Amino acid sequence: MSTDERRTGLSRTLYEEFRARIADGTYAAGAPLPSTRALALERGLSRATVSLVYEQLAADGFIESRAGAASRVAVGAAQGMHAGRAKRERTKPTAPDPLAGSLSAIGQHIAALKLSDPRPTALGEIDFVYGPLSGSDFPTLTWVKAMRAVESQRSRRLEYEDPRGNMELRRALQAHLSQARGLACSVEQLMIVNGSQQALDLCARLLVDPGGGVVVENPGYRMAHHAFEAYGAQLLCADVDAHGLVTEQLGKLGPAKLAYVTPTHQFPLGSFLPIARRRQLLDWAAEQRAWIIEDDYDSEYRYAVRPEATLQSLDTRGCVIHVGTFSKTLSPQMRMGYMVLPPALVQPFADAKRVTDRHAATAVQRALARLLEDGSYDRHVRRIRRLQQARQRALVDALGRHLGDEVEVQGAASGLHVVAWFRAVPAAAESALIEAARHQGVRVHPISPLFHPSTAALTSTRSAGLVMGYALLDVDTIEDGVRRLSKALLHLRRKASSHHH
Amino acid sequence: MSTDERRTGLSRTLYEEFRARIADGTYAAGAPLPSTRALALERGLSRATVSLVYEQLAADGFIESRAGAASRVAVGAAQGMHAGRAKRERTKPTAPDPLAGSLSAIGQHIAALKLSDPRPTALGEIDFVYGPLSGSDFPTLTWVKAMRAVESQRSRRLEYEDPRGNMELRRALQAHLSQARGLACSVEQLMIVNGSQQALDLCARLLVDPGGGVVVENPGYRMAHHAFEAYGAQLLCADVDAHGLVTEQLGKLGPAKLAYVTPTHQFPLGSFLPIARRRQLLDWAAEQRAWIIEDDYDSEYRYAVRPEATLQSLDTRGCVIHVGTFSKTLSPQMRMGYMVLPPALVQPFADAKRVTDRHAATAVQRALARLLEDGSYDRHVRRIRRLQQARQRALVDALGRHLGDEVEVQGAASGLHVVAWFRAVPAAAESALIEAARHQGVRVHPISPLFHPSTAALTSTRSAGLVMGYALLDVDTIEDGVRRLSKALLHLRRKASSHHH
Repeated sequence: MSTDERRTGLSRTLYEEFRARIADGTYAAGAPLPSTRALALERGLSRATVSLVYEQLAADGFIESRAGAASRVAVGAAQGMHAGRAKRERTKPTAPDPLAGSLSAIGQHIAALKLSDPRPTALGEIDFVYGPLSGSDFPTLTWVKAMRAVESQRSRRLEYEDPRGNMELRRALQAHLSQARGLACSVEQLMIVNGSQQALDLCARLLVDPGGGVVVENPGYRMAHHAFEAYGAQLLCADVDAHGLVTEQLGKLGPAKLAYVTPTHQFPLGSFLPIARRRQLLDWAAEQRAWIIEDDYDSEYRYAVRPEATLQSLDTRGCVIHVGTFSKTLSPQMRMGYMVLPPALVQPFADAKRVTDRHAATAVQRALARLLEDGSYDRHVRRIRRLQQARQRALVDALGRHLGDEVEVQGAASGLHVVAWFRAVPAAAESALIEAARHQGVRVHPISPLFHPSTAALTSTRSAGLVMGYALLDVDTIEDGVRRLSKALLHLRRKASSHHH
Repeated sequence: MSTDERRTGLSRTLYEEFRARIADGTYAAGAPLPSTRALALERGLSRATVSLVYEQLAADGFIESRAGAASRVAVGAAQGMHAGRAKRERTKPTAPDPLAGSLSAIGQHIAALKLSDPRPTALGEIDFVYGPLSGSDFPTLTWVKAMRAVESQRSRRLEYEDPRGNMELRRALQAHLSQARGLACSVEQLMIVNGSQQALDLCARLLVDPGGGVVVENPGYRMAHHAFEAYGAQLLCADVDAHGLVTEQLGKLGPAKLAYVTPTHQFPLGSFLPIARRRQLLDWAAEQRAWIIEDDYDSEYRYAVRPEATLQSLDTRGCVIHVGTFSKTLSPQMRMGYMVLPPALVQPFADAKRVTDRHAATAVQRALARLLEDGSYDRHVRRIRRLQQARQRALVDALGRHLGDEVEVQGAASGLHVVAWFRAVPAAAESALIEAARHQGVRVHPISPLFHPSTAALTSTRSAGLVMGYALLDVDTIEDGVRRLSKALLHLRRKASSHHH
């Protein structure tokens, strides 16, 4: 292959990549592209190759280049393409007419959900997103070793497993939860699920009828709320303060079948639910004969102190369903979570898991079991906890230095995010703040979508808030990002005051 | 470590293994254990070690040894153990009393399902089971290579993917389905699910309301039926004859929202649904505004001819949901299947998948994409198809030689199983036949459980039938197994005639 051919191949690949990402909306209209220099460096290509690709993309109308400014994705670029059609197909059907049959009530509930698509991120943008983990933090060598060992010891009979999951993993997990979380349960009570979202889905399905009340935290984890709404549940929103769910409100919310709480580290505000409120919550559940889901999504990231005891350990009636995940320590793409079920719920949940999708994938479970058994999972968690703590300190520190009293930071005792409240910016200006940040090359994410829409009016009196994650960023980039954010605030201020004059 | 200590360790491990398997019911009461000689050989242990373990198990009351006969698991052995308690916990709750709250209607539907637990298999038994694949047929080297490549190219941002699945896999699958199955669809219509069971669960949830009618084949794939029953659907059973679903009956079954069919290779009877019946089915669906699920679970195993066109390709209204799986070509433990959705259902199903469990696991999807792209999946399928065909020929051949006119074989044109009808044995004696086979060291599986319970009375006039799978067995073992089965039939005959005299 000649050098020319090779270069042609490389440019074609890069061209197709951009075209595909523009087509599927990953790069949205108006999003800035990285400089040819930065991209060449990142991909190990010559700058000439990248320039060639940009010229071709511009010639084909996908991007717009302006002298002295970053190239941007052209408005309407996605429309003409094949995937543009697909994009249109993906808009919600407004009438049942195009359907060859009808949707069930659940199908209609789901179609009515307002699920936000993951936002497209521009190349080179500093993204303070919460949720994704960095691929470079993943323990690849350990994992590949475990997977290889598992594959070489494939069982002779490849058959469906216990719907609750692989016994090796459940045994290892039982020991791990006991040691790391002080959580006592039998192997029988453990069920491996496809990420915590499936745990929530199963709870919603098995425990709540259409119209049934489900107590949720507000603000809270909206994907949990959606899991309940999918089955026609009625969300009963309880406020959250500096001590988590305001349990005093429980009595006034009306009858409920289920409560969904994040007592170790309230999402998103970060508070720990104190023992008195925990007891109040359990008493309320006993009165209502309600179930409680304890979502323990990030207890691995308690920086100052060991994680407190679980709500499950206080439960004497068997009403608490404890849910955990490997999405925050290994990868959200792995789709591995677990439930600790009250004994009376073991059989119905195992049966439900079986008719739903039989059981979680075996190989990944067995590899996870190895990591837990040989101590490499614990080592990994210790390592990544230090990493995340350093990132968090860098963030809190930079916010203090660059924004000082402008910003109040909440929830920095643990987890992979903090909430930054902009004292002088009203909630109504949240999107303006985000837009201003975007112009500085920083992507930040508002807290507003984590409030239930029905309470939007009430919360408009508060300050603008950002949910700031740092798991993708190194400490230097965090510093850079916060500096840009402070610039954005300055621009926003100037604009606002020029409007006033 | 001394030799004695080492032996003690080995015996303890073996002892614990037996104890655990007896406790969890893998080895059921009365099941024969392998001879000490066979087990010692299999595990590479001394016969003395194995004898020691058997003696200890007998002393502890877990097994019963009789001179000159195989040791057997003691009746009631599982009861006293820790897992015995778990076993009792796993029996269905008859009253809601032990529950701290209540179950939803769906939860109650699921609790009422009669799900059969996977049967315990005795060591050394020849098992003509349908479903499991042999671990030695799995393309381990290819798979490990693909997994390693995928892990070394982990993306820098580990975030949730499109709920429909990884784009690399969907592109590769689109090409594969077009080439191997003549199935035309856009990448947008493809959704990767956790095995075909999840496809059925999503269809049931989104398309059928409680009390809604679902047409199913009888006999048929009961786990599909259970997926519909879980949501309170009313099963409308249509008979199956030598040409598949008897579509003439459709008009008399009453209103329906959905039909579930296996038109390429009816499960379990193996018939192919001819074009005229396909058109009748589609016309009926248009009239009813019903959806149709086409379960294409084993079209890779057409031995004589290439697979016929799909039902989906005849569908002009967008009412057919095509479902496929990798459980029959790679492993049921992999939990990988796919749906080809009508365009109008793409958005609701993608949203449902997202609130259910976000998306299928990324790494496995990317590894599968590689196998499809580089041709190794096709090579594997050709290889395993030849293997399975040889096994099937050995089975059909042995049945002919050893049982001759006693047995009628059905459905041998494709797939991983045949149905063997025992002409002179009435359906009522099916379990006696299975018990007689068990005494000869052969495990066979009745067809009765694949009939809907409501039609049990009607079907009692038929002959006894066995669903005979061969994917786990080599040709010599198949020959041996059929010989034993013919012996079992002889014993059964003698017993019956001695009763008569």
